[in-house]
Amino acid sequence: MSKPAGFSQRCLHYAFDYQTPKTLVIPDIGVGCVFRFGQLLVLLYVVGYVCVVRKAYQETDSVISSVTTKVKGFAFTNTTDMDPRFWDVADYVIPSQGDNSFFVITNMVVTPNQTQSRCPEVPNPSTTCMDDCDCIEGHSDPRGNGIQTGLCENYSTTAKTCEVLSWCPLEIDTKLPEHALLASAENFTVLIKNSITYPKFNVHRRNILPHINSSYLKRCEFNRATDPDCPIFRLKNIVSEAGEDFKTCWIMDDLYCMFLKGGVLGIIIDWSCDLDWWAGKCYPKYSFRRLDSKHPVNNVAPGYNFRFAKYYKTQDGEETRTLIKAYGIRFDVIVFGTLNVVLFIPVVTDWFMLTCMRKRDRYRKQKVTNLNEDAETESVSAGTSYGTH
Amino acid sequence: MSKPAGFSQRCLHYAFDYQTPKTLVIPDIGVGCVFRFGQLLVLLYVVGYVCVVRKAYQETDSVISSVTTKVKGFAFTNTTDMDPRFWDVADYVIPSQGDNSFFVITNMVVTPNQTQSRCPEVPNPSTTCMDDCDCIEGHSDPRGNGIQTGLCENYSTTAKTCEVLSWCPLEIDTKLPEHALLASAENFTVLIKNSITYPKFNVHRRNILPHINSSYLKRCEFNRATDPDCPIFRLKNIVSEAGEDFKTCWIMDDLYCMFLKGGVLGIIIDWSCDLDWWAGKCYPKYSFRRLDSKHPVNNVAPGYNFRFAKYYKTQDGEETRTLIKAYGIRFDVIVFGTLNVVLFIPVVTDWFMLTCMRKRDRYRKQKVTNLNEDAETESVSAGTSYGTH
Amino acid sequence: MSKPAGFSQRCLHYAFDYQTPKTLVIPDIGVGCVFRFGQLLVLLYVVGYVCVVRKAYQETDSVISSVTTKVKGFAFTNTTDMDPRFWDVADYVIPSQGDNSFFVITNMVVTPNQTQSRCPEVPNPSTTCMDDCDCIEGHSDPRGNGIQTGLCENYSTTAKTCEVLSWCPLEIDTKLPEHALLASAENFTVLIKNSITYPKFNVHRRNILPHINSSYLKRCEFNRATDPDCPIFRLKNIVSEAGEDFKTCWIMDDLYCMFLKGGVLGIIIDWSCDLDWWAGKCYPKYSFRRLDSKHPVNNVAPGYNFRFAKYYKTQDGEETRTLIKAYGIRFDVIVFGTLNVVLFIPVVTDWFMLTCMRKRDRYRKQKVTNLNEDAETESVSAGTSYGTH
Repeated sequence: MSKPAGFSQRCLHYAFDYQTPKTLVIPDIGVGCVFRFGQLLVLLYVVGYVCVVRKAYQETDSVISSVTTKVKGFAFTNTTDMDPRFWDVADYVIPSQGDNSFFVITNMVVTPNQTQSRCPEVPNPSTTCMDDCDCIEGHSDPRGNGIQTGLCENYSTTAKTCEVLSWCPLEIDTKLPEHALLASAENFTVLIKNSITYPKFNVHRRNILPHINSSYLKRCEFNRATDPDCPIFRLKNIVSEAGEDFKTCWIMDDLYCMFLKGGVLGIIIDWSCDLDWWAGKCYPKYSFRRLDSKHPVNNVAPGYNFRFAKYYKTQDGEETRTLIKAYGIRFDVIVFGTLNVVLFIPVVTDWFMLTCMRKRDRYRKQKVTNLNEDAETESVSAGTSYGTH
Repeated sequence: MSKPAGFSQRCLHYAFDYQTPKTLVIPDIGVGCVFRFGQLLVLLYVVGYVCVVRKAYQETDSVISSVTTKVKGFAFTNTTDMDPRFWDVADYVIPSQGDNSFFVITNMVVTPNQTQSRCPEVPNPSTTCMDDCDCIEGHSDPRGNGIQTGLCENYSTTAKTCEVLSWCPLEIDTKLPEHALLASAENFTVLIKNSITYPKFNVHRRNILPHINSSYLKRCEFNRATDPDCPIFRLKNIVSEAGEDFKTCWIMDDLYCMFLKGGVLGIIIDWSCDLDWWAGKCYPKYSFRRLDSKHPVNNVAPGYNFRFAKYYKTQDGEETRTLIKAYGIRFDVIVFGTLNVVLFIPVVTDWFMLTCMRKRDRYRKQKVTNLNEDAETESVSAGTSYGTH
Repeated sequence: MSKPAGFSQRCLHYAFDYQTPKTLVIPDIGVGCVFRFGQLLVLLYVVGYVCVVRKAYQETDSVISSVTTKVKGFAFTNTTDMDPRFWDVADYVIPSQGDNSFFVITNMVVTPNQTQSRCPEVPNPSTTCMDDCDCIEGHSDPRGNGIQTGLCENYSTTAKTCEVLSWCPLEIDTKLPEHALLASAENFTVLIKNSITYPKFNVHRRNILPHINSSYLKRCEFNRATDPDCPIFRLKNIVSEAGEDFKTCWIMDDLYCMFLKGGVLGIIIDWSCDLDWWAGKCYPKYSFRRLDSKHPVNNVAPGYNFRFAKYYKTQDGEETRTLIKAYGIRFDVIVFGTLNVVLFIPVVTDWFMLTCMRKRDRYRKQKVTNLNEDAETESVSAGTSYGTH
């Protein structure tokens, strides 16, 4: 039927043939009406609400979120290292402003009355010395605590170490309290207020749902079974929902215990929802997850801690500070969500056409080309039969 | 034409038939050239710039943003509760480092000279007592302010309350100043510097547009009508653009007044833009929105506040603090945007093929199968006519 | 074949014809088996893992990330303006809690012993005066430093300026040290711990890779060539990888030198990866980029700085403060990534059908309609040949 083409001609065809999808047009007034009526509904919605009001044509939208948090509770500590002390929110929450990330101190190493002065280093293989020759003036060991003065001094009756210029006395952070100082932090509560917006579709929601009133909010506490909508969370419950075990934490010397060694906990609020024709059921779904690693392998410096200082001035104007190495739990409130607007018109029209119409068999035959095993033979015989007419 | 198949055979067909989209190949050199030339242009762009330089093949890209903010202005307060006081940025902006979220104090309850000591509770139904029997030593009421010592003391000449161990004197936060202390905060200005990057396409933009010079920046102020490109915003204007009304705020005892009770305001910078062949017109669009709720229903603890403390040491080494319950406006700078790269080659080729080509009718006939009402009859008669030849 | 239709009828067709894609069904058991087996594998994976375990049906997923940072290093300053001073992490890192954004002070203007009092303004055209008539009591110039008292006082022997109520003495920030005070900050290191989660597919990863052990982590330092997996970064290397030049910075009076004037640096961690059938190779890719602008044009207030204060109380209860205008580098750790799940079953089936099957030519003929130049003539002659049978 076609004469043999040269190789170059075939290549030309290969290079310059244009492929395009095929379309089937069905001129039935019934199918068409269903299709156009559906399109009309979408059009009214899209033009009247989405386009004019919100200038949005897209089908998905990402969330804009605002979070404020407020921790409540207080603690009392009475250890041999420190004076008896009462702790309230201003003392143990950092930063104070109640952002979407807040830190609650649960354990600490306090080094009070540090001043800019000279003192012997904390003993370790690189700081111990026999005499001044072992210490280099001006040398600063990255793993040390200050700049060496070149002198070798008595750290204790048994150890001599190089003297350093630093904030003295030096912190001894190996003496971390075995029982978390602010263990009562587990009973603190946090109120999370979260307002979200899907900007393109102008959908606003709050995690304080419409049916919640003030008196309920004053006494409620989140519980997945009984109070799933209450935005007040007890820290203990967050930690245990995230899969951390308290029992082992208190009994054993657990390296990964959050209250002793610190950690990062995610409070995840999922606002994903579909916006249908009729209404948008968008409710927050809370989940909790430990975000830092607790794997017992490859774990350098497990937990979470940082150092901060409070600065004072003495009568004679000298600056002193209290250095605090704070261990505790950082709570990151993570809000995510996607709004999907369901536009399902084509699906409905196809379904109507292929099931309800009188001529559904003809439409299906054209829409779906069925390459039968015997198709070639049949079409030939069909052609023949045409001829015999 | 086909013999009746058994049910099982039909099921087999249903289960193992494979559906695949059909393609139409048009071997016309004209259409092909347009198609290939368009592809060549895309290819040059994609290979030369996108792939080689940026290793990006995707059509959309999300924004990476960096924000710095700097508030300017000062205030002076002179109330009966406090000494006359001058306030500058270091006093009223928290946190100080000018991040994408900053808080400006507008009102406050200050409790100076608190020390770790004992004092009678603030009177309320759960703290008032007749004698020591009503107070339980060691008990800590979550709604109270400290740990009960077991004594019942005179709070005033008329009220007796349980004594607590706490930071004393206790804060009395019901006495919030009726007129915002730092009302002049409305005249503070904030300079927002925002640099964005669409990493895949290596597009960089700043909100300080190229045509803005230093002298303009020193005196300009954002105004949607006259200065829409100036990145310096007066807090008053932000608040009123977000739909808050000042008048009612000052006159009435408005529970939702931002300057009295605090709130969260979003400064939203939208960098969404299309990157066309020729150039990318990406300009920031500013909008302002109140992010916390101001609905008068279901509103527990309206507004936004938090407590922080400044710590001091007295001559004899005792720690004292000034507790500040700060009300104010938290400004969240929210940057979002999507970069769309318009690749419109197939559309152009189709349009060319179906409108400009000499054989456009034949192409359209094949591209679009028109299932005419009389189609079946026609094809039969066509077959017949072939036979009579 | 079709009688000429009226214009209105054509419009009707145009309006109510429904277009739908066509499908080709191939009833070959071989193709079908490959197709169904592929589907079965996907189904097992989707139902067994994705749907049941994670309730996820989507093909892409966005990252949830948690970052903690810890800076190490100390510095010593000895200038004429200040007493010799030792600096450690608690002194130079703001905020202290090691979030995904941290700031390292590299230069500063310190104004100690400020008290609420009166002092003459810093001289500039708008503050200089001849006598008291030039100063308006209660006036506050937005570019000034306080509220005018109405007096004209001697600022120095040569200049008279209006007296203001403010924190006195006033800061003189034109005297910025020419050599960055904490130049040794370039040798500080930062450990970045980053854990990510793709929530829909339950994929967890850390930037501390499985093959890294504690002893390696204690001594390693990131180097793109030799140690690309080490999560400990030297600030100097970050800055130079971001394209900043140190040499010019120290030698010239460079307005854009980060260590002198401050800046914002992005540490970008890219977790984009594909999740295949067999395994998910998701490794972090680090890159560094200066996020604030360093263009020498249109640059008002280049660099990055902010003011903060440390508050003290004197013996007699008066509040004093040390105001610090801190210049330095803000490091923003930016984590992004998309997880793509590759579902490639249809592609494999098509390839199998069109290359391996015995009847591949017939399938190709039906799948791809080749509109040959001579097609019309051929089909007529074909019809004729049928007739002659």
